[in-house]
Amino acid sequence: MFQDFKLFGDRPVAVQVKEYVQRLILKGGLQAGQKLPSTREMSSLLKVSRNTVIAAYESLEDDGFAYAIPGKGSYVAAMAGSSVADDGGADGSEVWQIDWRARMNEYAVSAVELDRMKKGIRSEKGIISFTSIAPDEQLFDLGDVKRAFLDRMAIEGQVLLNYGYAKGYKPLIDYLMLHMENKGVDISGKDMLITSGFTEGFDIVLSALRPSARRGGALCENPTHHTAIKNLRLHGFEVTGIPMERDGIDVGQLEAQLQTNRFDLAYLTPSYHNPTGIVMSPAKRSAVAQLMKHYQVPVIEDGFNEELRYSGAHIAPLIATAGKGNGVIYIGSFSKVLFPGLRVGWVLGDRALIDTLESMKRARTIHTSTIDQSILYQYLLNGNFDSYLKKARAEYKRKYELTKALCEVHLPEAQLSGDGGLHLFLTFPSGLNTHELLDACKEQGVIFTPGDKFFLQEGEGTNTLRLGFSRVTDEDIERGIQMIGKQARRFRK
Amino acid sequence: MFQDFKLFGDRPVAVQVKEYVQRLILKGGLQAGQKLPSTREMSSLLKVSRNTVIAAYESLEDDGFAYAIPGKGSYVAAMAGSSVADDGGADGSEVWQIDWRARMNEYAVSAVELDRMKKGIRSEKGIISFTSIAPDEQLFDLGDVKRAFLDRMAIEGQVLLNYGYAKGYKPLIDYLMLHMENKGVDISGKDMLITSGFTEGFDIVLSALRPSARRGGALCENPTHHTAIKNLRLHGFEVTGIPMERDGIDVGQLEAQLQTNRFDLAYLTPSYHNPTGIVMSPAKRSAVAQLMKHYQVPVIEDGFNEELRYSGAHIAPLIATAGKGNGVIYIGSFSKVLFPGLRVGWVLGDRALIDTLESMKRARTIHTSTIDQSILYQYLLNGNFDSYLKKARAEYKRKYELTKALCEVHLPEAQLSGDGGLHLFLTFPSGLNTHELLDACKEQGVIFTPGDKFFLQEGEGTNTLRLGFSRVTDEDIERGIQMIGKQARRFRK
Repeated sequence: MFQDFKLFGDRPVAVQVKEYVQRLILKGGLQAGQKLPSTREMSSLLKVSRNTVIAAYESLEDDGFAYAIPGKGSYVAAMAGSSVADDGGADGSEVWQIDWRARMNEYAVSAVELDRMKKGIRSEKGIISFTSIAPDEQLFDLGDVKRAFLDRMAIEGQVLLNYGYAKGYKPLIDYLMLHMENKGVDISGKDMLITSGFTEGFDIVLSALRPSARRGGALCENPTHHTAIKNLRLHGFEVTGIPMERDGIDVGQLEAQLQTNRFDLAYLTPSYHNPTGIVMSPAKRSAVAQLMKHYQVPVIEDGFNEELRYSGAHIAPLIATAGKGNGVIYIGSFSKVLFPGLRVGWVLGDRALIDTLESMKRARTIHTSTIDQSILYQYLLNGNFDSYLKKARAEYKRKYELTKALCEVHLPEAQLSGDGGLHLFLTFPSGLNTHELLDACKEQGVIFTPGDKFFLQEGEGTNTLRLGFSRVTDEDIERGIQMIGKQARRFRK
Repeated sequence: MFQDFKLFGDRPVAVQVKEYVQRLILKGGLQAGQKLPSTREMSSLLKVSRNTVIAAYESLEDDGFAYAIPGKGSYVAAMAGSSVADDGGADGSEVWQIDWRARMNEYAVSAVELDRMKKGIRSEKGIISFTSIAPDEQLFDLGDVKRAFLDRMAIEGQVLLNYGYAKGYKPLIDYLMLHMENKGVDISGKDMLITSGFTEGFDIVLSALRPSARRGGALCENPTHHTAIKNLRLHGFEVTGIPMERDGIDVGQLEAQLQTNRFDLAYLTPSYHNPTGIVMSPAKRSAVAQLMKHYQVPVIEDGFNEELRYSGAHIAPLIATAGKGNGVIYIGSFSKVLFPGLRVGWVLGDRALIDTLESMKRARTIHTSTIDQSILYQYLLNGNFDSYLKKARAEYKRKYELTKALCEVHLPEAQLSGDGGLHLFLTFPSGLNTHELLDACKEQGVIFTPGDKFFLQEGEGTNTLRLGFSRVTDEDIERGIQMIGKQARRFRK
C-alpha cells in the first residue's frame, strides 16, 4: 500500500496527500477503525515532508475522514452511509437506472435536434478555417484587461465577490444607458437588464413572449442568424422569413406579410446582418419602424456588431428611429467586438417590460457574473474600448478588403454581400451546392460555413456560404480563397 | 453653445469631448453640414488641450458623426434615419406604444408574482439584519483571487477572453469530477455541465423535465428553499411537501406519498437543508435512495453548503449512495461558501442527460463566463480553497455556537434547528406570528426572515423564522437576539 502515490502538477502537496488517503478510504482500501501510518512513517512512504503529512491528516480530520486519539495516532473514521463500494445499487441488488431519454420533454429534445454546434464541422490543426466570426484574440490587450480587473478590485474590494443584483451592476447599467443615448436613443420610459451575453437576453425575452396557444408567429430576415432561428423555434414560434435585398429586408414583402397574417414579434438585425453582412439603409429603417408601428408588431433588434462599423455615416438603430415609442427591444453585446469569454449583454426596452424580465432573470441565474460586469465597466471607463475599437476596425477593414478583392479574383461567379464586420456572404449560381464544395475543399484543408443553415426552409441557400475572416491570417485568407476558387472551377465544368 | 461642457470623473477627456459633441449632434444642437469650431477654438471654448480636441474630432469622424474637408475643417455629417428628434413616433405622428403587460405569457407573469425578492424586506444602514445567508465577504482573501486571475491569464493569455465551450471549461470539469469522486461518487457513466451557479443548473434541469401535460408532480422537503419552490412552480410542477424530522425528511410519509401518487421527480437538500439547517442522517439517505429507486423517481440533489460542514463524520451525498446508478442529478456550487459574485455551479449526472442539458445550455447562454470558471479553477488548484475553508469553518462554527447559545437564553420558548452552516431555524409555539414579531422588531432596528415563505401551503410555518448569522458581527448578534427575545416576550403576554 501507498506505493502508487504520485505527485501531480503544482498543487499543494498536503492537498494531494490528503486526497490520496481520502480516495483509499472511499474505495475501501483503508477500513474504518484502521490506524493510519504515523506521520513519520507516512512521510518516508510517500517521500514528502513530515509537516506535509501532519497538515494532510489534520485536513482529513476536519472533513470527518479520520480522527485522532491523543498519544496513539490517527484512525480511519467510520463512513456514514457507505453503500458506495457496492457493485450494485443502494439496496445492494441491481443498479438504480432511469431512462433519461424517455423523460426528456419536447423542448429538451428540440434543443438537441436544433443544436448545430454538436454536428458542426470541427476545425483541426493545419486547416484554414473560415467558419468562425469570433473576434481575433490577438487584438485583445491583456494588459488593459488586467488593469481593469485590478483597478475595480482596488476600488470595490470584496463586495465584488459577493451577491450582486438581478438587474445588473449599477455602474455598468448607467454607462450603457449613456452609450445608447449616444446612439440617438430616447431613453425616457426605458430601462435596462444586464444578461450573460446576447443569447441569454434573447432567450429571456422570447420566454416572456412565448406563445401560450399555438398562435405564435415571428417575422425575421431570411437568411438570418441560425441561433436566433433555433431559439425562436424552441420557444414555439412559427417563423416567417422575409427575403433580403442589397440594402436590407424587402419592405414590400414585409408589408404583404403584415397585411395577411398576425405576428407576435419580429427579430431583425439592421447592422452587419448575419450572415449577409448587409447594413440596412436609413430609409428602410424608417419604413420598417412605420410598418411595425402600424401593425403593432414589436421588434427585437439585434445590435450585433453595431460598434464595429468601420465605414459610412452614423446610422441610428431601430430603437432610436422609434423615438419615444416602446415598440423596440434592443439587445446589445460587445461579444463579437470585444471579449466573448466575458459573458455580458444588455436588453434595453420599455420599463415595465424590463421589470418583468428582471424577475425572470432572477429565477434563472440570480444575476450575471459581477466579475465580468465590473471588468467590462472599468475597461470602458478607462477609455480602453475606444482605442481598442480604432485598432480593431482598422484591422478588420484591411482584412475585409483583402478578402473581398480575393473573392472577386478567384470566385468571379459568386455574388458578394457584406458591408464590413467580420465576414462576407457569397451566393453562387444555383446548381452549385456549397456542401459538396465544402467536402471538396475540406480534403484540401480549407473549411467555411455552408449558408443553408441560415435559411428558414429546407433546400434554400444551398448555393451560398459564409466566409468569416476575422481569425484567419492574411496568408491563409489568400491560400484559402485560391483553393475554394480552384474547387469551384471544377464544379463549374 | 459649448458653455455647458463639464468634465466628469476620470474618463479620458477626449472621449468626454467626443460624446459631448455627439450628443449635441443627436439632439439637433448641431446640424448636418454645419462647420465645427476649429480645434484651436474648441480647445479654448472647452478648456481642454488642442490634442484632445483633435483626438475627439477624429473619433467623431470614425463613427460617422463628422467629416473633414482637408484645409477647411470638420463638418457635421448628415444623420441617417434621423427621425430621432421628433416628439412623436417614427412617422412623425403619435408614439409607437405596445402594451407589454398584455403580451406577457403565464410564465412571465408568474415569475413576477413569485419573485419574493422584489417584495422582500430591504436592509438599511444601522439595521441589524439576520436575513442574509450569503457568506461573510470579510473572509474572502482578495490577494488569492487576484493571484488566481493573474496566474491563469499568464498561462492561457487571450484565449480566456474568447469563446469557450457550452459544457464548461475543461480543466475545471476535470477538477470537479475528481472533487466529486473524493466525496465517494462513482463517476462511471456520468458527466458534468458547468452552469452559471446552482440556480441556472436547476432551471435547465427543470426545463428538460418540465411536464408536457398537466401530470407534473414534484416531491420536496417541507419547508424548503423558496427559490426552488418558485422554480418548480414556474415550470408547471405541482409540488408535494414531506415534513421534516430532526434527522431529515420523514421517510414514513415519503413512502406513503410514493405509494399513493406518481411523481416526476424529487428535489432534496440532504446537507444543511435550507431553511432548517438539518443534515440528513446516513440511515435516512440510504432509505431515501432505496425508496426512490423502487418507485423510479429521479432525485435532484442540492449540494447546498455541503463543503461547509464543520462537525461530524464525512457523510456521502445521495448521488454517492446511489452507487453506479444514474437516478440522482447532483447540482453543486461554491456560491454559499466561496464567492457568490463568481457565478459557477455544476450539474453531475447521467452522461446522456448531461449531453441533452449541454444543448440547452448552449441555446440559453452559449457558455458560462470563462473568466469566472478559470479564476475558480486556478484558485482551487492553488490550494487556496482548503485554507479558506479551514478559516471559514472555524469562523462560522464560532458564530453558530454564539447564536445558538444566545437563542437558548433569550428565546427559550423557540425550538431550534440547524446543525451548522450559515443559519438557524426557530419554531415558536403556535400562535406567535413571526410577521407580527418582525414588524415589532423592525421598529427596534432588527430584521430576520419569517419562515412561512419556505413552506408550501399558505398558513404553514407562520410561527417560524430563519436567522442568518454569517454576515452579522458578534456584537450585533447579541444585541439583535436580545431584542427579538424582548419583543417575543411581549407577544407571550
